[in-house]
Amino acid sequence: MNAPAHPLVYDPKSPPLLPFSDQVIAAFADGRDTPRAYLERCLDIIAEREPAVLAFVCRDDVGARNAADAATERYKHGRPLSLMDGCPVAVKDIIETVDMPTQMNSPIYAGWQSGRDAASVYALRQSGAVIVGKTVTTEFASGASGPTRNPFDPTRTPGGSSSGTAAAVGAGMVPGGLGTQTAGSVVRPAAYCGAYGFKPTHAALNMGGIHPISHSHDTLGTIASSIDACWRLAYQIAHHVGGTSPHPGLVGPAALGAGVRPTRLIWLYTDGWKEVDGASINAFDGLMRELKQKGVEIVDRSDDDEIAKLEQLLAGVDVVASTITAYERRWPYLDYYHRDPSTLSPYLRDSIEKSAALTAADFRVTTEKRAQIRHQVAALGTRADGFITFTSSGPAPLGLDWTGSRSFQICQTLMSTPAFTIPLLEVEGLPLGVQLIGFVDQDERLARQAKWMAEACLA
Amino acid sequence: MNAPAHPLVYDPKSPPLLPFSDQVIAAFADGRDTPRAYLERCLDIIAEREPAVLAFVCRDDVGARNAADAATERYKHGRPLSLMDGCPVAVKDIIETVDMPTQMNSPIYAGWQSGRDAASVYALRQSGAVIVGKTVTTEFASGASGPTRNPFDPTRTPGGSSSGTAAAVGAGMVPGGLGTQTAGSVVRPAAYCGAYGFKPTHAALNMGGIHPISHSHDTLGTIASSIDACWRLAYQIAHHVGGTSPHPGLVGPAALGAGVRPTRLIWLYTDGWKEVDGASINAFDGLMRELKQKGVEIVDRSDDDEIAKLEQLLAGVDVVASTITAYERRWPYLDYYHRDPSTLSPYLRDSIEKSAALTAADFRVTTEKRAQIRHQVAALGTRADGFITFTSSGPAPLGLDWTGSRSFQICQTLMSTPAFTIPLLEVEGLPLGVQLIGFVDQDERLARQAKWMAEACLA
Repeated sequence: MNAPAHPLVYDPKSPPLLPFSDQVIAAFADGRDTPRAYLERCLDIIAEREPAVLAFVCRDDVGARNAADAATERYKHGRPLSLMDGCPVAVKDIIETVDMPTQMNSPIYAGWQSGRDAASVYALRQSGAVIVGKTVTTEFASGASGPTRNPFDPTRTPGGSSSGTAAAVGAGMVPGGLGTQTAGSVVRPAAYCGAYGFKPTHAALNMGGIHPISHSHDTLGTIASSIDACWRLAYQIAHHVGGTSPHPGLVGPAALGAGVRPTRLIWLYTDGWKEVDGASINAFDGLMRELKQKGVEIVDRSDDDEIAKLEQLLAGVDVVASTITAYERRWPYLDYYHRDPSTLSPYLRDSIEKSAALTAADFRVTTEKRAQIRHQVAALGTRADGFITFTSSGPAPLGLDWTGSRSFQICQTLMSTPAFTIPLLEVEGLPLGVQLIGFVDQDERLARQAKWMAEACLA
Repeated sequence: MNAPAHPLVYDPKSPPLLPFSDQVIAAFADGRDTPRAYLERCLDIIAEREPAVLAFVCRDDVGARNAADAATERYKHGRPLSLMDGCPVAVKDIIETVDMPTQMNSPIYAGWQSGRDAASVYALRQSGAVIVGKTVTTEFASGASGPTRNPFDPTRTPGGSSSGTAAAVGAGMVPGGLGTQTAGSVVRPAAYCGAYGFKPTHAALNMGGIHPISHSHDTLGTIASSIDACWRLAYQIAHHVGGTSPHPGLVGPAALGAGVRPTRLIWLYTDGWKEVDGASINAFDGLMRELKQKGVEIVDRSDDDEIAKLEQLLAGVDVVASTITAYERRWPYLDYYHRDPSTLSPYLRDSIEKSAALTAADFRVTTEKRAQIRHQVAALGTRADGFITFTSSGPAPLGLDWTGSRSFQICQTLMSTPAFTIPLLEVEGLPLGVQLIGFVDQDERLARQAKWMAEACLA
């Protein structure tokens, strides 16, 4: 595939992200701009950058233009449906859409039509959002990588499994989109591509109509050009279809209030820190100094034995997470496997074979370990506003086959806590994300702190 | 549709149920019988009775014969896959099958192919079971009725929503099958059709690949010709694919032990009792006397204030259940509704319109009420072995449009407890089921008590 003539140059102070802000909405409202004109600008950027980035599996420009025209009419009559009316969005290709195939990056689903919209897609359409197309996922969001390249270096991965959504947002093709995370598949690709990413509290956004991996870890999230845009997309989903039952849905308002400076953050050291390069460590240390200067207290295991206890529980936790995932994904993967193993990539085939031997007893042991971790996290809720750490073990690695280490995301997935990645840092011309992790169902509080951090550190 | 020349005559001591017992397995093992010959007997009975009962939407006789031949070979070589190897089963048509369409009794899904097996169908195939066909469901298991008639009176409903599976088992066409219950859709039709029905603890059987109504109430269950057959079918599902995560799956052995006489049962009086006719009340009173003679202590609210407290909590509980269901089913039903309301029956359309107005706050209030009920049920776990009541407010009502009152099933669905219906009684030549309700995740204990009751009262 053709490499780009000029890959985008990354500068965290002026990234190529497309805003979808109150200013944009105001311009729609008073006619200086329209959703149709905004969409056309997106399509122009897609035409320019997509050949090098390869973020989309398929698009429906006609459907998108019709939706954008309908939004334009609503603004003309002063009746937008929501704060997301007219917002172009990209949808990961494991999420069902009634007007485009859902193919999971697997030959098993080549050309497959679900005949309906996933809960999240239905909700976004109800909010007036414009579905631009389906974006590249790794095979079933857990297997072989797709063709997507990092917008800032075509020789590097965009991350996975929400590769296409992250690359499309990071490259400024669309202001936002949908991703899913079972280990680290929302925040890691968002960070590698210089985008903002929001993995809400587990089950806070309705997963209906999304191909499963691991029910108790699969989480729908948003990737967008700002904390506000991440939040507003997520809010619309919860408003229309709630959470994955029995979770009632994400708690909070349609529009976030002003940013709030965290009083105290826990600097969380986990297994992943062993993997991080010196340049990234230096950049992170600099950020911690900056946050302290701005009045945020940073504490770590040396300040509080309860933090040390959590880090001990999190040691080697990837085995816990992978055992839970393997047990939960026996169906439908063993069904695919027994019908025709050759339809699965060698990597996925191997992991499915391993899952066949797991028993309910294995599952219980690991979910009990997970419950201990969640209990310890909750116990820290009175001691700090949240946790701060890397989103990933460095910038996007070279190559397209491996989508990067999950070591910095797996903990918050297992903790079931909300997390944001904020593109605050830059290393060797590549984006490096900072991860802010909160407490279960305190997504709004976390979002306002992430908003403050982005404003304070990128001003 | 043609009425039957001779509807089956019902006698609870010698119902037309097809056994799939240790005797059948022994005959397969020593060659006196084979799975293929067993299947052919089923197909002969289907040919005779299906024109009057109309239990099946579609069948795959070729596929079933191939599966039965493979099972016959396995027995010939002394290597059956499980205690269910060679058992013909019927599958409710909201449950996905790779080799037959899954149509939900809705024009929206006419001819729809999911491209995979539901978790339960995959598991049953792995156990060697023979999938005979897809059975009639009410529209999306909650709307308009299908054509199925009661095997013992073609002018009466078979019950719903698992109408076809219950009628096929009750008419002796197959020894077992799959149903689902969100309000009362496993045990009620089983009782109306003179079959045994098992609604396990919520989420104890994997719901993957089954069209949703209400995630926190939808429960996969089994309908079969005996308590053992109900259990063995359920066990195979849990063994291969577990529960709906995070439930690890039904707890218990592949084959139930001997029946166990309950020491003490709670006679549960709920709203439904106001609906019951005198003949049914008399039959039930007689059974209670018989159980007392057989040494089972029967207690009620007059013996224990904690029982009275539960019954107070259960008063008017159908509103709680219907609010939870309405909130949870906004997706996908509002999506179907907004695309084309004319594809939905008037009844379903009306209830979907009502659901649009519900908020997360409404949902929280009702789930808190549900939590109180579940807490009170658990508190009674030390005071009795379980609860005994009617399965339905009488025998199958006249007419095919209405599938009968949910008043006797809604409580145990909301309680999330396991329940069996046992065809112990007969009123005016029609089956009348008795319901035994246990405690969460004590399905095996309940099953052995149900087994004792069937043996003791039908001997």
